[in-house]
Amino acid sequence: MEKIASLCKRRGFVFQSSEIYGGLGSCWDYGPLGVELKRNITEAWWRDMITSREDMVGLDSAILMHPRVWEASGHLAGFTDPLVDCRQCKQRFRADQLTAEKCPECGGELTEARNFNLMFKTFMGPVEDTASVVYLRPETAQGIFVNFQNVLNASRLKIPFGIGQIGKSFRNEITPGNFLFRTREFEQMEIEFFVKPNEAESWHRYWKQTRFEWYLEYGIAPSRLRLREHGADELAHYAKGCADVEYEFPFGWSELEGIANRGDFDLKQHAEASGKDLSFFDEEHRERFVPYVIEPSAGVGRPLLAFLVDAYDEEIVQDEPRVVLRLDPRLAPVKAAVFPLMRKDGQPEKALMIRDLLKQHFAVAYDQAGAIGRRYRRQDEIGTPFGITVDHETMQNDTVTLRERDSMQQVRMPVDRLVDELRARITAGCAGVAAGAP
Amino acid sequence: MEKIASLCKRRGFVFQSSEIYGGLGSCWDYGPLGVELKRNITEAWWRDMITSREDMVGLDSAILMHPRVWEASGHLAGFTDPLVDCRQCKQRFRADQLTAEKCPECGGELTEARNFNLMFKTFMGPVEDTASVVYLRPETAQGIFVNFQNVLNASRLKIPFGIGQIGKSFRNEITPGNFLFRTREFEQMEIEFFVKPNEAESWHRYWKQTRFEWYLEYGIAPSRLRLREHGADELAHYAKGCADVEYEFPFGWSELEGIANRGDFDLKQHAEASGKDLSFFDEEHRERFVPYVIEPSAGVGRPLLAFLVDAYDEEIVQDEPRVVLRLDPRLAPVKAAVFPLMRKDGQPEKALMIRDLLKQHFAVAYDQAGAIGRRYRRQDEIGTPFGITVDHETMQNDTVTLRERDSMQQVRMPVDRLVDELRARITAGCAGVAAGAP
Repeated sequence: MEKIASLCKRRGFVFQSSEIYGGLGSCWDYGPLGVELKRNITEAWWRDMITSREDMVGLDSAILMHPRVWEASGHLAGFTDPLVDCRQCKQRFRADQLTAEKCPECGGELTEARNFNLMFKTFMGPVEDTASVVYLRPETAQGIFVNFQNVLNASRLKIPFGIGQIGKSFRNEITPGNFLFRTREFEQMEIEFFVKPNEAESWHRYWKQTRFEWYLEYGIAPSRLRLREHGADELAHYAKGCADVEYEFPFGWSELEGIANRGDFDLKQHAEASGKDLSFFDEEHRERFVPYVIEPSAGVGRPLLAFLVDAYDEEIVQDEPRVVLRLDPRLAPVKAAVFPLMRKDGQPEKALMIRDLLKQHFAVAYDQAGAIGRRYRRQDEIGTPFGITVDHETMQNDTVTLRERDSMQQVRMPVDRLVDELRARITAGCAGVAAGAP
Repeated sequence: MEKIASLCKRRGFVFQSSEIYGGLGSCWDYGPLGVELKRNITEAWWRDMITSREDMVGLDSAILMHPRVWEASGHLAGFTDPLVDCRQCKQRFRADQLTAEKCPECGGELTEARNFNLMFKTFMGPVEDTASVVYLRPETAQGIFVNFQNVLNASRLKIPFGIGQIGKSFRNEITPGNFLFRTREFEQMEIEFFVKPNEAESWHRYWKQTRFEWYLEYGIAPSRLRLREHGADELAHYAKGCADVEYEFPFGWSELEGIANRGDFDLKQHAEASGKDLSFFDEEHRERFVPYVIEPSAGVGRPLLAFLVDAYDEEIVQDEPRVVLRLDPRLAPVKAAVFPLMRKDGQPEKALMIRDLLKQHFAVAYDQAGAIGRRYRRQDEIGTPFGITVDHETMQNDTVTLRERDSMQQVRMPVDRLVDELRARITAGCAGVAAGAP
């Protein structure tokens, strides 16, 4: 993990938030490469889960919601951690994480546990009083539930269908940590999939499978991915069943995504609290019911960290160490880098022309500084799947070498085939060896 | 505006946040079509301003930042509105918006004006005291300034270069309003472009021109767009010069984007407050300086509203009213709709096959319900630039009609040319009449 965190900072994937002021607890900023990686992950999710499907639509609801939303959802009363204070040194701890009855810092006496709500509280409008309290949402899900009827009215969707959204959520965690893994401000990719109650279990199975396979599709090693069913004692108050997609991080198996059967809990709660009808009328069978909800709820930071950790590799190539990020080409922040072999004979100019040609289609880097082997390594380290070298022969017959990151194999190829070749390989998610080069 | 707001709700562009609970002041949710329109706008900005340029990189910094950021930036002391209370009815008003000395509601006596900070305040960690106060950022810009050295270290950028980001900001406005125009939670697309001090004015001109033209490029009518230079009395404390790109909304000319010359104010403030060196060393000229910053700062909601308002059109076609959103095809939430002319003879099945073929590349709708004219109108109203109709002839020779939204002209075209034809027209941003159809 230290290697990953160091690489992340050095190459501009992730910086500590407000670092020049000593940082802010567990908040992180995505740098130039990190933001592209993150955009590629969220774009892949949006394409695979929303736009390419007939039974899904997107939504983007506000972070600030009416406080009654959190009353109805149970978050105001129940979204809490038990905290104890040390009477002596005044520090606070999570009661459920203490192993002894005395303060772990100073051995002092501890208070009784009190429930501490994890929602961030703020005030809307000019007066700071109880009437103006609003909360930063702790999950994007409720923005979907309260818009259920709006979406139904504005579309012609029929159950089963789902609503997905990507957005920031906030939880005032007492013990954040593990780099991007547990942060107070985080981004979610959530789906609420509405189904007939008697079909909920089969849809739950479908989504567990679909979401598990999504991580494999983008390159996570099967040996480090598992689907773990929750025990009855782990289930949230609203859940009829839940399974986590877990990844084996360096700090142990941890959740990337939870896929829960929330039953009709949320829609019923909001219907009761708001007095609005949140049921669905099935015209075909002439029946009215409150749908059950299957919720595949993923973070963005956690998958991003898993993709980075999983892609990270060190090897020895010709007696030299090589660090390589074996990212799926669809996720890689830079798709190709163009290198003139020498800084003369028109090679840099030709390489820049090729860079400009490719840049209309992909994120492309250009590098003319230093030995070619070193330039390859700089790109390997950030996961760039393809290297294109302009050399003496290029100037004669308009061909370049295309080097593949993982195998380091090179094939010669006409410049005018580059765009199609790269697009085909990137779309296929395959950085594999070139086939059928001339 | 009422027509736009009504269309937005009815067709699923924009819903009021927490509507089932009576709504939350000036917060809005983007529905299935709105989120796609918003994604297309931010994607266009990111592509045009970041990935296609050699002198720009992206960033995605956290919303929660260290409170010292806002001390240094001047927001804690100066980001305020003057407020007065009515001693009688206890309501609050912005002093600078009052025209009389008595309460506009009840005629009561008003208090002296007090400065009210527009930043949303919350508490991080388990203790709610002054030490744990953090703020929701009122602009994304400061996340860029505090990462200036991190980005320089992680990249090989040289001045002039810029850092751009898209993200949420929050301002506790006393008088929000005009639908999406002034909201307390809003999204920004901001660029901080770092230049040599003596080149700041020419870069300022460059960015004013570039950003003005961006709105024209995506279809805003030139007659409703203007660039307005700020008077000296309007300038923010940090600005050496500023111009607004303004759009003529139904409620008057209003700002879409401000393009400011912030000088070296921010980097100097943060360097002093943090004790870190935030200067740049120009190796070529062997000189060290604190860069000036040109800031093109746009919202997302305001341009989105402008694109909607500008695209909205009503006309009479064959004695029938037609509402049409003339959105640029790159921005349109749905790119094409496929219609079987009749629900028999295999036409629906064929149309679904075409839908599936196109859906691999674009956001595509399918509609088989009702008269064909009515189905066209449903798509016209949401700005879908292309309609594809499967008819009797399709079943014989595998051709379809391609109807263009604005001209309503139709051309016949082989199914196997559809993807290329649509891609070419969408990329060109042109929904114009088909050229060279067979």
